[in-house]
Amino acid sequence: MVPGALVLASSSPQRKAILEQLGVDFTVQPASVDELEQGDPRALVIENALRKARAVKGARVLGADTAVAIDGRVYGKPRDSQQARRYLERLNGKKHQVWSGIALVDEDGTEQTAAAVTYVTFRDLKPAEIEWYVGTGEWRERAGAYAVQGRGAALVERIDGDFWNVVGLPVPELLRLVPDLLHR
Amino acid sequence: MVPGALVLASSSPQRKAILEQLGVDFTVQPASVDELEQGDPRALVIENALRKARAVKGARVLGADTAVAIDGRVYGKPRDSQQARRYLERLNGKKHQVWSGIALVDEDGTEQTAAAVTYVTFRDLKPAEIEWYVGTGEWRERAGAYAVQGRGAALVERIDGDFWNVVGLPVPELLRLVPDLLHR
Repeated sequence: MVPGALVLASSSPQRKAILEQLGVDFTVQPASVDELEQGDPRALVIENALRKARAVKGARVLGADTAVAIDGRVYGKPRDSQQARRYLERLNGKKHQVWSGIALVDEDGTEQTAAAVTYVTFRDLKPAEIEWYVGTGEWRERAGAYAVQGRGAALVERIDGDFWNVVGLPVPELLRLVPDLLHR
Repeated sequence: MVPGALVLASSSPQRKAILEQLGVDFTVQPASVDELEQGDPRALVIENALRKARAVKGARVLGADTAVAIDGRVYGKPRDSQQARRYLERLNGKKHQVWSGIALVDEDGTEQTAAAVTYVTFRDLKPAEIEWYVGTGEWRERAGAYAVQGRGAALVERIDGDFWNVVGLPVPELLRLVPDLLHR
């Protein structure tokens, strides 16, 4: 039996770009669901990924969610530039967690989930650097108010874990759930 | 005095992409130099970066070099698919070092250098995964025979350190040498 086509239940251009980069054959169908915003970050990203995957019809649907956490608080997408500035000041010079969860829901009802954490350490940013980044507007629609694969690269000293997990999709976990991902 | 324009002395599309991603104003002028191929990886990437930066004329020239090292051996660009396969088998399931060095040479003769190491851990790859990657041809012109920002993302379990250093340019070190990089 040929495995069913993969449907990405996400509107994130970053997640689409990761699957394209890997050469995966897939289609996109964004899911519109209510998302958890606070709680244990691992449980939260798995639950949100599941909600997205369940909301879309397809042979094999992939949902995903990403959250930034530091000191037990989850930081989602900032609502405006003031909140973005506060998030970046909170992360400045420190190590935080980025959790991404994935959920695979097959047509026959089979559900699989996984999550991974990557530690991201911010550089010691000067106020002018934070202002520069807020001014780029890149923080919009980004958990934690930064995009590590964009201008936000300048904010980061180091990462420990899977890089793509910070961008939005835990690639090693996805390959464990879908071992034939690269050959479909 | 307005700082001089930055010239990237490299033919690497990846290094160009990193500077573009950061929004840096620069031009490209590839340097053609004899490069060291073996030796202490830190000293090697700094020396090669310096050779490239010195070989190009400009107000402020940036040279860079990247090398993969494991068990005291440096792995450069593979010459053919057989060598690429051997490199990948050597890295399979293990942690290796990626060193990138940068050199900044100013018109007045000032020279500054820096280097950084990032640890990259490969997944436990099946022979079919190595064959798949060799078949992509992506290993061409890549130190260590893989491109972490391409299909090669599928080979990697985790990284510890600066991600961009693995792609070809140590961003935190560059920002330390050129604090006004983002505002030029």
